[in-house]
Amino acid sequence: MNYDGYFARALAQLQDEGNYRVFADLERHRGNFPQATSHCGQTRDVTIWCSNDYLGMGQHPDVLSAMHEALDKVGAGAGGTRNISGTTHHHVLLEAELADLHNKEAALLFTSGYVSNWAALGTLAARIPDCLVLSDALNHASMIEGIRHSKAERQIWRHNDLAHLEELLAAQPLERAKLIAFESVYSMDGDIAPIAEICDLAEKYNAMTYLDEVHAVGLYGPRGGGIAEREGLMDRVTVIEGTLGKAYGVMGGYIAASVDLCDFVRSFASGFIFTTALPPAVAAGAAASIRHLKASAAERASQKEKVAEVRARLDAIGIPHIDNPSHIIPVMVGDPVKCKYLSDILMRDYGIYIQPINYPTVPKGTERLRITPSPVHSDADIDCLVGALETLWTQCQLARLPMAAQ
Amino acid sequence: MNYDGYFARALAQLQDEGNYRVFADLERHRGNFPQATSHCGQTRDVTIWCSNDYLGMGQHPDVLSAMHEALDKVGAGAGGTRNISGTTHHHVLLEAELADLHNKEAALLFTSGYVSNWAALGTLAARIPDCLVLSDALNHASMIEGIRHSKAERQIWRHNDLAHLEELLAAQPLERAKLIAFESVYSMDGDIAPIAEICDLAEKYNAMTYLDEVHAVGLYGPRGGGIAEREGLMDRVTVIEGTLGKAYGVMGGYIAASVDLCDFVRSFASGFIFTTALPPAVAAGAAASIRHLKASAAERASQKEKVAEVRARLDAIGIPHIDNPSHIIPVMVGDPVKCKYLSDILMRDYGIYIQPINYPTVPKGTERLRITPSPVHSDADIDCLVGALETLWTQCQLARLPMAAQ
Repeated sequence: MNYDGYFARALAQLQDEGNYRVFADLERHRGNFPQATSHCGQTRDVTIWCSNDYLGMGQHPDVLSAMHEALDKVGAGAGGTRNISGTTHHHVLLEAELADLHNKEAALLFTSGYVSNWAALGTLAARIPDCLVLSDALNHASMIEGIRHSKAERQIWRHNDLAHLEELLAAQPLERAKLIAFESVYSMDGDIAPIAEICDLAEKYNAMTYLDEVHAVGLYGPRGGGIAEREGLMDRVTVIEGTLGKAYGVMGGYIAASVDLCDFVRSFASGFIFTTALPPAVAAGAAASIRHLKASAAERASQKEKVAEVRARLDAIGIPHIDNPSHIIPVMVGDPVKCKYLSDILMRDYGIYIQPINYPTVPKGTERLRITPSPVHSDADIDCLVGALETLWTQCQLARLPMAAQ
Repeated sequence: MNYDGYFARALAQLQDEGNYRVFADLERHRGNFPQATSHCGQTRDVTIWCSNDYLGMGQHPDVLSAMHEALDKVGAGAGGTRNISGTTHHHVLLEAELADLHNKEAALLFTSGYVSNWAALGTLAARIPDCLVLSDALNHASMIEGIRHSKAERQIWRHNDLAHLEELLAAQPLERAKLIAFESVYSMDGDIAPIAEICDLAEKYNAMTYLDEVHAVGLYGPRGGGIAEREGLMDRVTVIEGTLGKAYGVMGGYIAASVDLCDFVRSFASGFIFTTALPPAVAAGAAASIRHLKASAAERASQKEKVAEVRARLDAIGIPHIDNPSHIIPVMVGDPVKCKYLSDILMRDYGIYIQPINYPTVPKGTERLRITPSPVHSDADIDCLVGALETLWTQCQLARLPMAAQ
């Protein structure tokens, strides 16, 4: 076995397919997001159009001052796992803030949204006797890995297909434990699950519900509690999972649920127990961000306007994008090499950074430029983006839709 | 199925066994570690004796100022996965620092040590065709989960038992891919693996080696590169895995290895690809910590003295602890209820915080108080600790060893 030869061949194959990922080396400008300096090749200024810091909260003065204060008060790291000296007062306060956000009894912090899904789903599905997991076909990798990790029986229901979900539920004995796992806003297509109807089915068939709101918390609902808050459904969902690394602009993941459920996951989840806790300053920054977005709807309103503006401008020139009711604008390219090429030219000629989204993040043939307008993108930024896409679509002779009336 | 009833019963069982974990709610004092305020019940000052912030670097001025500077310069979060807008210049610089630390071609950052083991071992063992994983019996939960996740064939070799490892290796065809996974310093017993001899076997039988140095990086070797550095073995180990959350005092995990191996894991590991990158300020703090400990041996020397002092003082009064060549002092109690009781009394009556270590962190019957002396523990702290243990061992009529000559 020649190990190095094996690695080199696998990487060459990715290159050949156009799926080899090149990371953009960026340096943001504090207080001036979405502007950043790119260190890819020549150093230059760019505008970021593909961030999950959806509201620019990663630059919010309240968040930054909370982090500075925590550093000044308690230092850098937590110094241990949550159990062994790593629980700090900042973690406790943040968990209370999260429980309040979702109107749940309790919340439990993880080091990331990925880990929260993996550890919580993995633990619930593994430990609840004879649990059947009903998983939406487009669930995120972290949910799939958690379910797989549990070794519980799993059935995949067609994406957002209530009839299929009910068919699977109805085929099981009422007394069997069942866990329906799904997302609210799906990251790559930006569509939204029918949460109320899924809760109806869960109640009818005695199933638990596990709702991933990572692309919704901070962004939807009067206090940023997500789609379930907006639709008045938080109390009907068993577990709400969210992230502190997207709209809240920092890092970390969590679940919010009943005291006993959170305590159960806290007590049994390997990925929670055996890992160093988040730095207190990270917890402090996230708590400040949540508090701000509970009280302020301005960022959400402004984001909505910018998203509508970009969509309308793209429609006006026939640039194809997936129509959806969320803040995510997937501009479809459908080829990994072209997608990477467009991204490279946007960066090189226009100072616009949009990472190409290729397999395995999306299925092959659906490669795209995923655009996430935020309140901090200016009208000039939008003009520049739309102008660049218009030019490139012509230059590269890419397919257009019929243009909307301007 | 009554879900809440199930959770409540499982938690009650943990309580009955004495294995229910109660987290200590602490607030450190910046610049004054190991002192902290405990918010458990009545607020009071305590001395932390069980932190993995082994050298107190979580309070080091260089680390804190690097984090403040990064917050001021680039803001809070990374805003995306490494691939989608989340790679910042701080990540790139930290990876270069880590590659240099271990004298490897490359390094790859993860959000935690747990994730680095899970994702790297999971990806290597799953993807390398017909890979056999040879795993030390006492490997950390994160390694076990990664290996399990890979679904590769796994054989467990008896802890640090070279003859057993060779027996397993020799039974396999030379051309079959093999990955030997082990740690340098084992966290709970504090013993150290025979790395040179394991490398001899790996070379003889054409196996890769994967060495977890999370309890050694920063602490051993002239530049803090770990046990492999101290013993001049870094170039013989295929993958060195480490953490930024223990001796380096911040958060995060990494592997250091060849360019192609790191690129391979970067390109295929779900737990790397689909997760938000570390905040740039965390990366900046970790890089400052590594740089400091590359140049300064003072913290390592002082820690060594404090560890020797505590050991000698415990020996003098016959308090049983596992003898080992590392910085970890496991004081053996052997019963979960007694262990928790001792910890509670130490906190309540002496202001000493040592978390009880019970199952599943250690096997049942080997419950312990795990003490980690650091350069920032004063002589008075040591006097207080030893005095308290002496009193409690008498009060509780716990077994003592023959006392060493004072």
